[in-house]
Amino acid sequence: MSGCCLSMESRAGPRPGGLSYCVAFSQLLGLTVVAVTGAWLGLYRGGIAWESDLQFNVHPLCMVIGLVFLQADALLVYRVFRNEAKRTTKILHGLLHGCAFVMALVGLVAVFDHHRKRGYPDLYSLHSWCGLLAFVLYVVQWLVGFSFFLFPGASFSLRTRYRPLHIFFGASIFLLSVGTALLGLKEALLFKLGTKYSTFEPEGVLANVLGLLLAGFALVVLYILTRAEWKRPPQAEEQALSMDFKTLTEGDSPGSQ
Amino acid sequence: MSGCCLSMESRAGPRPGGLSYCVAFSQLLGLTVVAVTGAWLGLYRGGIAWESDLQFNVHPLCMVIGLVFLQADALLVYRVFRNEAKRTTKILHGLLHGCAFVMALVGLVAVFDHHRKRGYPDLYSLHSWCGLLAFVLYVVQWLVGFSFFLFPGASFSLRTRYRPLHIFFGASIFLLSVGTALLGLKEALLFKLGTKYSTFEPEGVLANVLGLLLAGFALVVLYILTRAEWKRPPQAEEQALSMDFKTLTEGDSPGSQ
Repeated sequence: MSGCCLSMESRAGPRPGGLSYCVAFSQLLGLTVVAVTGAWLGLYRGGIAWESDLQFNVHPLCMVIGLVFLQADALLVYRVFRNEAKRTTKILHGLLHGCAFVMALVGLVAVFDHHRKRGYPDLYSLHSWCGLLAFVLYVVQWLVGFSFFLFPGASFSLRTRYRPLHIFFGASIFLLSVGTALLGLKEALLFKLGTKYSTFEPEGVLANVLGLLLAGFALVVLYILTRAEWKRPPQAEEQALSMDFKTLTEGDSPGSQ
Repeated sequence: MSGCCLSMESRAGPRPGGLSYCVAFSQLLGLTVVAVTGAWLGLYRGGIAWESDLQFNVHPLCMVIGLVFLQADALLVYRVFRNEAKRTTKILHGLLHGCAFVMALVGLVAVFDHHRKRGYPDLYSLHSWCGLLAFVLYVVQWLVGFSFFLFPGASFSLRTRYRPLHIFFGASIFLLSVGTALLGLKEALLFKLGTKYSTFEPEGVLANVLGLLLAGFALVVLYILTRAEWKRPPQAEEQALSMDFKTLTEGDSPGSQ
């Protein structure tokens, strides 16, 4: 057992240097995405309010903060806090996803309420179909993830089998969210600018830059998540605990995440 | 050495059952994407020709065949032919990427030629910016990949360091290509249908279904690529050869792909 723990400790150690720079860059890019979304809405769409036509603008801002920035950060906690106790990391992961869900819900209420007030039809576009799919998958993933990993009922073997699926669907829902954001941005541009889009209007150029920033943010987050040597090493305490108390929430993690 | 080979042989073995079903499903989905693209262009856009306005329609069809379907299949060869000789698999990977490149080039020539004849401006939209980025990255990745992995000059350690980057950028360029296709589809719909898009016109619904099929295809391909136990096992012959003839193209592979 001591040999096993020693080997685990040697795997934990300090955080790899490249990881810190990459995470810092991802946060800079993510905050830039949020800021540029705000700047676009403020400069060219009249800003944000719950009443009046400006209610629509709550939708893109909340979705970008919730299902892009906060969702990405929820995925990254297993890399950023790779040497912390698993239970703490799990709770932070769940909390960040909870905040992302609330932001997304406000964004969705804003757009449906805006459509209802103006008599606009709902859910006819590819953006809305992809968005609905992403949101439904997000809620299902949150509920299943909560009942498997935070609620103490699920067995060790059930968690082991479900874990790779949870990770894959987590990254997939994030990518689908970014894709949906790009479609929404394009829709908003074409509805307002029409053929003026082809004259390199400042709003069109700014929104194109925002689109590239969104795509870049998604790729940097994906890089951090998939790089093999940055994955969370199995913690000595977890391994030891899991041998004796498999039912303890923080002790039942099957290997690295 | 015999123990090592035995262990390698035991890792190779028959293809996992789930992998075959998933690959078959991906091919069915990919061919459906190509067929629905063709049906959309045939039913609602007047079909395809190199002369006249129909030249534009060559663009979506070629890009979907090249940078979506063929590019995905080029990535999947390392899973489908996981027990074949590495050199054969590499050549097939390069050839499929070569075909994808030619198709994409025809698609790009079609749209630029169409724009030139009609006096339309180029490269103003988010679709074109993302597409240009994807294509440039694709060409760079092909050239660097060719000189590192098919050309016999690169050293073993250089290949080992570059390999994870090549895999990550390969998947990223594929995802960026699918995202660009979704943006292009949306652009084509909004340019033609305008506000009629919101009345659930048959063309709009078909194109939305095509968009979901594209997103679904990307996720299935990503699932096959990322599932840990489906990765290519190191081959006994490669391991043995790499011990003695590190400069041989088929013997210098650093582990599984």
